[in-house]
Amino acid sequence: MASSNESVYRATTTAPVNIAVIKYWGKRDTTLNLPTNSSLSVTLSQRSLRTLTTASCSGNFPAEDTLNLNGKPQDIRSSKRTLACISSLRAHRKALEDADSSLPALSKFPLRIVSENNFPTAAGLASSAAGFAALVRAVADLYQLPQSPKELSRIARQGSGSACRSLMGGYVAWRTGELADGSDSLAEEVAPASHWPEMCALVLVVSAEKKDVPSTEGMQTTVGTSALFAERAQNVVPQRMAAIETAIRDRNFPDFAEITMRDSNTFHATCLDSWPPIFYMNDVSRAAVRLVHDINRVVGRTVAAYTFDAGPNAVIYYEDKDSELVAGTVKAILGPNTEGWDGAFYDRIANVTAPGVSLDRIDSRAVEVLKDGVSRVILTAVGEGPVKVDTHLVSETGEIISS
Amino acid sequence: MASSNESVYRATTTAPVNIAVIKYWGKRDTTLNLPTNSSLSVTLSQRSLRTLTTASCSGNFPAEDTLNLNGKPQDIRSSKRTLACISSLRAHRKALEDADSSLPALSKFPLRIVSENNFPTAAGLASSAAGFAALVRAVADLYQLPQSPKELSRIARQGSGSACRSLMGGYVAWRTGELADGSDSLAEEVAPASHWPEMCALVLVVSAEKKDVPSTEGMQTTVGTSALFAERAQNVVPQRMAAIETAIRDRNFPDFAEITMRDSNTFHATCLDSWPPIFYMNDVSRAAVRLVHDINRVVGRTVAAYTFDAGPNAVIYYEDKDSELVAGTVKAILGPNTEGWDGAFYDRIANVTAPGVSLDRIDSRAVEVLKDGVSRVILTAVGEGPVKVDTHLVSETGEIISS
Repeated sequence: MASSNESVYRATTTAPVNIAVIKYWGKRDTTLNLPTNSSLSVTLSQRSLRTLTTASCSGNFPAEDTLNLNGKPQDIRSSKRTLACISSLRAHRKALEDADSSLPALSKFPLRIVSENNFPTAAGLASSAAGFAALVRAVADLYQLPQSPKELSRIARQGSGSACRSLMGGYVAWRTGELADGSDSLAEEVAPASHWPEMCALVLVVSAEKKDVPSTEGMQTTVGTSALFAERAQNVVPQRMAAIETAIRDRNFPDFAEITMRDSNTFHATCLDSWPPIFYMNDVSRAAVRLVHDINRVVGRTVAAYTFDAGPNAVIYYEDKDSELVAGTVKAILGPNTEGWDGAFYDRIANVTAPGVSLDRIDSRAVEVLKDGVSRVILTAVGEGPVKVDTHLVSETGEIISS
Repeated sequence: MASSNESVYRATTTAPVNIAVIKYWGKRDTTLNLPTNSSLSVTLSQRSLRTLTTASCSGNFPAEDTLNLNGKPQDIRSSKRTLACISSLRAHRKALEDADSSLPALSKFPLRIVSENNFPTAAGLASSAAGFAALVRAVADLYQLPQSPKELSRIARQGSGSACRSLMGGYVAWRTGELADGSDSLAEEVAPASHWPEMCALVLVVSAEKKDVPSTEGMQTTVGTSALFAERAQNVVPQRMAAIETAIRDRNFPDFAEITMRDSNTFHATCLDSWPPIFYMNDVSRAAVRLVHDINRVVGRTVAAYTFDAGPNAVIYYEDKDSELVAGTVKAILGPNTEGWDGAFYDRIANVTAPGVSLDRIDSRAVEVLKDGVSRVILTAVGEGPVKVDTHLVSETGEIISS
């Protein structure tokens, strides 16, 4: 039997993307990634979007930790955030080893981490959340750490704030916390996906001319310069957090939708109010806003909700029973040949053959702008948190495998 | 000699457009047009943009007051605002007549008011401000009222809030006032045009696809629904009013410019934060924002300031000495054949032959978007208030004359 020094230890996990409905924007501590306000997100199904990460370690590996993302070696030493996550995880492992000398000394071995997204980074989806969640979950599994997802969220948060919300499925809150060391700034499940599995999400991928201000930089510009920012963080968001948790508990889609849309708008308002101003939404985004309001108006109830992150892509939430009204109408506008309709959730719209809402009742200019400006869709739904899998990206002997 | 009953009494005035640098958005009393916050504007030269209005009255006119705008008879009875202005002015005239019985009883005669703008309504400029200011000034002149422009602003305000600021030239504040009856909600001159005559304004007229929410409706939506609105009205604007008045007093363009741009952004942020959200700026507007920030960055000092009203048009303020840097750069982008360069202020840029800022230092996409999206320019400057003129739009015998 090989000594523990020669073995290659491996653990592999998938992790999901999450899309916030109450937005995280602004840090009160940039090193610890402590937010100025709580946030809440829906975890999206990994049938559509997921990061797959293998964490491995061995006494035989060359001395330094390495990270390979989508086939490319990363300069791990230049990423303080990755180093912070690894360092915390290793310290937890070390504590286990100190308490039980029979455990192999994995904390002393170099790590080899390999990660792949199943979606293009260019799609403008927040891949860092899934990436850091997968990294933390995979290393924690490799190290056989006893910490709960909630406890691990403290570590993932240091990689990318929103990553802490990707450690759980369903409906996840990230509590801002009050302690200066951030130990109470944690993610927690508000409700599992099974509580409200009917929640669908349709992403309209808008070809951005150019990446605008990166969110890490943008949010601190807002914190430092917006005259309206403090009002959102201190007064508006706490009320909305309470209200949307109630809406989720009650599966009250109209309330969930209105709070979601309003908070997206308020978030982008604080960006516009920054100095210099930050614009993430463009005319295509505005057309998606118009479309959703038009659909809701024509249907006579709130069946769809838009939300926009730090980019022009629209994410439209709706319930499965309203697929025809929402996805069907979007499909009629964009045409069935738009890339993405044939994804993992195709069955949900397979029977949808007509626009749920007659297109002549939708603002005609919005229709034209969307037709020209949306390059692909991602049809997905609420989903589960990270899943342990056996499709390792590192072989038994330590070589990187392409999935 | 004809009896006073048979005579046609006439007074004619021109009135200017004004463009706010601290925006008026929101009424605390919709009937009296009382604003939620003070505002401040620059009166633009009537060499470029003006309303010409003749107020006339005669005992021989048919019994009802009439109003003719740009050649078209208006239904005066359906315009509560016009009726409110006329009623106030007539009451003031009546008071004069009651005190001096030798005065002709003009307050008893029907009014015939004829008004023309020298710019297309379609240009998206706030013609109602100039229109109501001209109406009030012309009728006040007809009635030989002793009230000062500040006192008349109380009347014009009831026609259109921002009209009160068009009764004076230069730099004009509209104080929100505190009294419930609005009697202290008045416009006053902060500084005459002659205090800082170097102020130029370049309007980029953006072909709006479609008129968005009218401002009267939009502002009350914001008051009623925006979570951020109260913060702007109560805290942000009072500080900015004080700061920009200091900047104007000191002719400090960089301060004037930054406050102007920030307040435009904050105003549009509260629109976006409204429910449903209101968008007045589009991708062309955003390109103008980018252009101004790029020019200021390349020049290394703040030479230009943008501001946007309830529409996509950009108004860019700058000082005459920086014409080459600002107007010259815009001219290089749009081309010399863009409609409007050959206006009343052509002499100010006649010697400008090259872009002040090399176009390869400006965001290339902003350049393209502006080139495609700006349909005409209006090159103008700070100017005087209403002027009494003899070019009547009503003949001595009461017929409407086309100017």
